[in-house]
Amino acid sequence: GWARAVRGLLLDVSGVLYDSGADGGIPIAGSAEAVRRIKASGLKLQLCTNETQATRENFVRKLRALGFDVSVAEVTAPAPAACRLLKERGLRPHLLVHDDLIPEFAEVDKTNPNCVVLGDAAENFTYANLNEAFRLLIGMEKPVLISLGKGRYYKETDGLKLDVGAYMKALEYACDVQAEVVGKPAKKFFESALAELGVPAEQAIMIGDDIVSDVGGAQQCGMRALQVRTGKYRPSDENHPEVKPDAYVNNLAEAVDTILQHL
Amino acid sequence: GWARAVRGLLLDVSGVLYDSGADGGIPIAGSAEAVRRIKASGLKLQLCTNETQATRENFVRKLRALGFDVSVAEVTAPAPAACRLLKERGLRPHLLVHDDLIPEFAEVDKTNPNCVVLGDAAENFTYANLNEAFRLLIGMEKPVLISLGKGRYYKETDGLKLDVGAYMKALEYACDVQAEVVGKPAKKFFESALAELGVPAEQAIMIGDDIVSDVGGAQQCGMRALQVRTGKYRPSDENHPEVKPDAYVNNLAEAVDTILQHL
Repeated sequence: GWARAVRGLLLDVSGVLYDSGADGGIPIAGSAEAVRRIKASGLKLQLCTNETQATRENFVRKLRALGFDVSVAEVTAPAPAACRLLKERGLRPHLLVHDDLIPEFAEVDKTNPNCVVLGDAAENFTYANLNEAFRLLIGMEKPVLISLGKGRYYKETDGLKLDVGAYMKALEYACDVQAEVVGKPAKKFFESALAELGVPAEQAIMIGDDIVSDVGGAQQCGMRALQVRTGKYRPSDENHPEVKPDAYVNNLAEAVDTILQHL
Repeated sequence: GWARAVRGLLLDVSGVLYDSGADGGIPIAGSAEAVRRIKASGLKLQLCTNETQATRENFVRKLRALGFDVSVAEVTAPAPAACRLLKERGLRPHLLVHDDLIPEFAEVDKTNPNCVVLGDAAENFTYANLNEAFRLLIGMEKPVLISLGKGRYYKETDGLKLDVGAYMKALEYACDVQAEVVGKPAKKFFESALAELGVPAEQAIMIGDDIVSDVGGAQQCGMRALQVRTGKYRPSDENHPEVKPDAYVNNLAEAVDTILQHL
């Protein structure tokens, strides 16, 4: 029953389309073909990613080089959502993010910071940079920490890596504050992705490898959600105490097979 | 009333005796003289520190160079306590600690690790080292994370630094485990310090700059505890929702004045 009455798909990227890595990453077998079949079928498609290691332009360039037929307009990512939030609230960020993400914040006033924006800074997660972000926060009368996601870890081609959520928890604890999360699993973020997809929640399916951020987050917005057994999927996810996907699939290709059969 | 019937003092070190720093640190005015007066009075004294950036030998050498009349036997520190715990439970650690602490673990089998021991690794808190510790933990059937303290931050001469507790929270979140804390505020650690002091809890006073680790921890063991207004003390500590010291003092010298007047 889970595959009925679908008009659009939200796809997580890392772990669903490809396994990311410093080497540029490796496509997951069948995923590029699956994206082509989704588009050929007339289903709508939006990538819903917490990727914060590159601008959307560079991210799409990388995906296209790996064989994925996707465009910048088809990417919903945390940095543009964060820029909207900063503007709305008159916040001037100190950025602790990946060098390649910095252009997304080009239009934002960063003088005399009154908040910290934390992304998956990777090699920029140095002891010195973490201390600097911490000192800025602890020096604020009311520290404002905005985190581009709260993932625990992700898988790259050379192994598992700590994700932004781990560093968010470090700063939260040190400053005794709660971060505001932009990106999955925030409800507002999924709602933006659905708006960009142009399909109501009950006609959309989210497909991801993260049981909490992808599956749990999407379900809380009234979507169906599948977990793929690729990327950072671990068998113990199937015993998660709180989140249960609408279905498990071995990979994106298998999900698309089933969905297309039900069109 | 807080200064009556005292036979021994437990002293935190960083922020009470001196402000630590890469330059070796700076003694807090009056503290070296206060240590001499404690000893001359016949009161017992034990340093109760979460210091994990050096062996006790090097730590004491540094303190003596700053003018403090203390010996290795007068230092209760987390690393030796962790070594006892590892031995009792047959645990073989992967160490993510400061280089200078490694000799404290010389006698411990570190082959084929089945736990991670986390200390204040300072410059060793690199992205690569944190990922390595994380991968070891997430690869264990039941991850065991032992943390030498859970402090949020401390003050060095060049500014505030994130302490081991922040990195502990990062790994706890990423691995969905709870660390076992050796060091303040663990009850077992204060009990070791009291045993080494040779004075029962009700006749001992803890003096520290950390409202939670020093004051809260000691009070939970039945001791009185003072917070000094030096080191990382912040005025907002005086509104802490859970912990209230038996008294505030401006510094160690002032505490010792009052205690000696009541002998």
